Amino acid sequence: MRLLTIDSVNPAILKVQYAVRGELAIKAEEHRAKLTKDDHGLPFKRIINSNIGNPQQKGLDQPPITWTRQVCALMEWPALMDLAPQAFPKDVIARAKELQEDIGSIGAYSHSQGVPLIRKSVANFIEERDGYPSNPDHIFLTAGASTGVSLLISMLITPPKSGILIPIPQYPLYTATLAQHSGIAIPYHLDEASEWSTSLHEIEGALAKSYEDGIEPKALVIINPGNPTGALLDENTQEELVKLCEKHSLVLLADEVYQNNLHKPDSHPFTSFKKIVRRMNSPIPVFSFHSISKGVQGECGRRGGYFECTNIPDSILALIYKMASVGICPPLTGQIGVDCMVRPPKPGEESYPLWKKETDTIHETLALRTKIMAERLNKLPGVSCVPSPGALYLYPKLDLPESAIEAASKAGKSPDTFYALQLLDETGICVVPGEGFGKKDGHNYYRLTCLCPGVEEYVGALEQFHVNFMKKYGRV
Amino acid sequence: MRLLTIDSVNPAILKVQYAVRGELAIKAEEHRAKLTKDDHGLPFKRIINSNIGNPQQKGLDQPPITWTRQVCALMEWPALMDLAPQAFPKDVIARAKELQEDIGSIGAYSHSQGVPLIRKSVANFIEERDGYPSNPDHIFLTAGASTGVSLLISMLITPPKSGILIPIPQYPLYTATLAQHSGIAIPYHLDEASEWSTSLHEIEGALAKSYEDGIEPKALVIINPGNPTGALLDENTQEELVKLCEKHSLVLLADEVYQNNLHKPDSHPFTSFKKIVRRMNSPIPVFSFHSISKGVQGECGRRGGYFECTNIPDSILALIYKMASVGICPPLTGQIGVDCMVRPPKPGEESYPLWKKETDTIHETLALRTKIMAERLNKLPGVSCVPSPGALYLYPKLDLPESAIEAASKAGKSPDTFYALQLLDETGICVVPGEGFGKKDGHNYYRLTCLCPGVEEYVGALEQFHVNFMKKYGRV
Repeated sequence: MRLLTIDSVNPAILKVQYAVRGELAIKAEEHRAKLTKDDHGLPFKRIINSNIGNPQQKGLDQPPITWTRQVCALMEWPALMDLAPQAFPKDVIARAKELQEDIGSIGAYSHSQGVPLIRKSVANFIEERDGYPSNPDHIFLTAGASTGVSLLISMLITPPKSGILIPIPQYPLYTATLAQHSGIAIPYHLDEASEWSTSLHEIEGALAKSYEDGIEPKALVIINPGNPTGALLDENTQEELVKLCEKHSLVLLADEVYQNNLHKPDSHPFTSFKKIVRRMNSPIPVFSFHSISKGVQGECGRRGGYFECTNIPDSILALIYKMASVGICPPLTGQIGVDCMVRPPKPGEESYPLWKKETDTIHETLALRTKIMAERLNKLPGVSCVPSPGALYLYPKLDLPESAIEAASKAGKSPDTFYALQLLDETGICVVPGEGFGKKDGHNYYRLTCLCPGVEEYVGALEQFHVNFMKKYGRV
Repeated sequence: MRLLTIDSVNPAILKVQYAVRGELAIKAEEHRAKLTKDDHGLPFKRIINSNIGNPQQKGLDQPPITWTRQVCALMEWPALMDLAPQAFPKDVIARAKELQEDIGSIGAYSHSQGVPLIRKSVANFIEERDGYPSNPDHIFLTAGASTGVSLLISMLITPPKSGILIPIPQYPLYTATLAQHSGIAIPYHLDEASEWSTSLHEIEGALAKSYEDGIEPKALVIINPGNPTGALLDENTQEELVKLCEKHSLVLLADEVYQNNLHKPDSHPFTSFKKIVRRMNSPIPVFSFHSISKGVQGECGRRGGYFECTNIPDSILALIYKMASVGICPPLTGQIGVDCMVRPPKPGEESYPLWKKETDTIHETLALRTKIMAERLNKLPGVSCVPSPGALYLYPKLDLPESAIEAASKAGKSPDTFYALQLLDETGICVVPGEGFGKKDGHNYYRLTCLCPGVEEYVGALEQFHVNFMKKYGRV
């Protein structure tokens, strides 16, 4: 018989690239396995997975929000309400009872679109945030934002000659999903010189090129706050982007999963695209994504999130429902996580003080770390770094010596991948090279998270590595 | 601007059909909403969702296995070990500690392939089941079996002229996923006359036709125990199927999610395809699926499962890993559910007696209900029903009066959909018409679950409806 080989499988799948868990992450896992042996011979004691925004991972150990975990524990085993009532605040018990009454067991499939009560909670949250109505029937709960993005991209793309506008640098989920569904990524560059802002001119240029190439643009992806850049859009730019979508009949995919990760909310606030579109009374179709994996919850492993549909006709909503139903339903504990995020304890309720303290601490720690890390990175020779006002990352630019670039070329690697591989081998710190996010030719970057265990250990190791690297390749 | 319409979206998505949550299920939801009002005017008090194997749904309320829920509650909020130690058996606490040590927080993303410790548990379970080695690196944990099926079909299909052999009747996930990825379903019919057995002759015929049509067959789907039929394959047939895969270079997709739902294990035992393939020393590539949604756990809402890869080359394993990593990781509570399923309490451990009692009760109840329901359905005029030896369903055949078939045709419905819609409107019982599973022309069926709340209320209503329907359309 003929064996199964990569030559015989779907070529679209071969084209998929996902660097966040790619070569570097796989090598990090190999090092981690080695570290369990006494004679590992590695010059570090542990792996720091700075390649992925995963706040609760081992070694980082950002504590979960107690409120969320208490509600979830009662949903898992309701008998605890009677067996250990003293262990739970009253508002936790009340919330669990309310959810149980509506849901029944979390071991049952829910409505494919998500538990109706939780969709109502989400709609209320959006109404309070934006000051415009939100319809629970236009909300789809998902297993993290990724499944929603994947579902909608697979629906919007009409192969072989249609595409979606993607910011560069971008979160590689978008290009990976496009490749999987034989869609074309239409890249537009963000402007590093002005804090990674979004340029209408760049997008118009990308559109013109796509028309020239016979590619039909279907949608525009905006990540706000940005990933990997942390940039925040101002409302004026948002309005211009909405007009651009009107002009070119584009669907707007608004990735707003970092909306609660704001380090400088006074100078860099967040406004949702839903609000802008409603205020302008624009007819453009918008899908906006949110997630429990980021923000202060950081409940990545739970797999929860949602997307809201704005200006989407019923026929398309029915189609989305059908596709959601093939996956049957999002994980119930992820859905409970969404409820806990959008409907936290209120002042005066028993859980409020602890919830407030825990969430404040996470916000403050992240803002402080981001600031310190950006300052220290910017002091390094050949490194420049926009101090992110949002999200969980920094995206330093590397100006590398010619001899390093030549050595990378000989090794068959892009210079930033070459740099990141050595960083991993020498310090145990795993980052994602700029190559994974798309970038302009000849520029080099890497993305690292600001979820470090201790700034000194982490940034100290980065600094020492960088100085040695620059020396090794003949600069400094 | 041009609005978003169904004419502008991916035509592959428009072709997807998924009847389990289709027209009937949507109408059932509408009735359910009506029932909350006093003047609903419906001739029943509640909806019975017999369209989906969802044991813990409201109204059915199959209790969850306490063991699973206790472990999960401690994973959610580990502080309970100190706050309420008396509430938990010692072996539950030990298991939770072991898992926490390996995983850390369930709020963190895990390895994309699933927690290594849990993959080891799965490998041990498979080794004990089959008597052949299993490699944790060849196991992928998933969010229910569906995500694994979807991932692998998207990988195996090479559009536009390749297909996968699908049993008819089939679980519509397969055709839905094929449609989404522009693959072609190559149907082969199961033999109702011999307890829905799998006929090599039928498959050879389907293959011959696909070659004639220029369609390359890539894989063979076998659902064992069958869905919707409940049929179990004998080992002789399994060996013949493996030889057929060798002859035609087919990948075997073995959907074995009902392996623990056996109502007559002495006369109708389950043997995994992994065991058959290893015993024959066959080189055919096999992917075998399991799930926590069925069996005795019925933890559908948790979204957990796995697939094991047998005879799959490393290059393909790497490709699967890449695609799994785009989805980042399966839900952690689903993964914990898998661990609880494959590594239950052992005799002598504190949780064992309760676990044994709970699981025995579920097995016995399901076997008894299946038997009684099949007997009573078989007594109805125009109904014949193979008494399923496995899974959760019955699949009765309807011999309907000509006038009913004409009325259905006038209403633009298939006769079994016409029947099922009236059943829903008159009794509140939601089933899936045979149309949704594929069927031979001119034959009519429906699938219903044996997870009924009370046999008398449920089957009594079915019987009464059927007799009235037959009278209405001029027979009996």
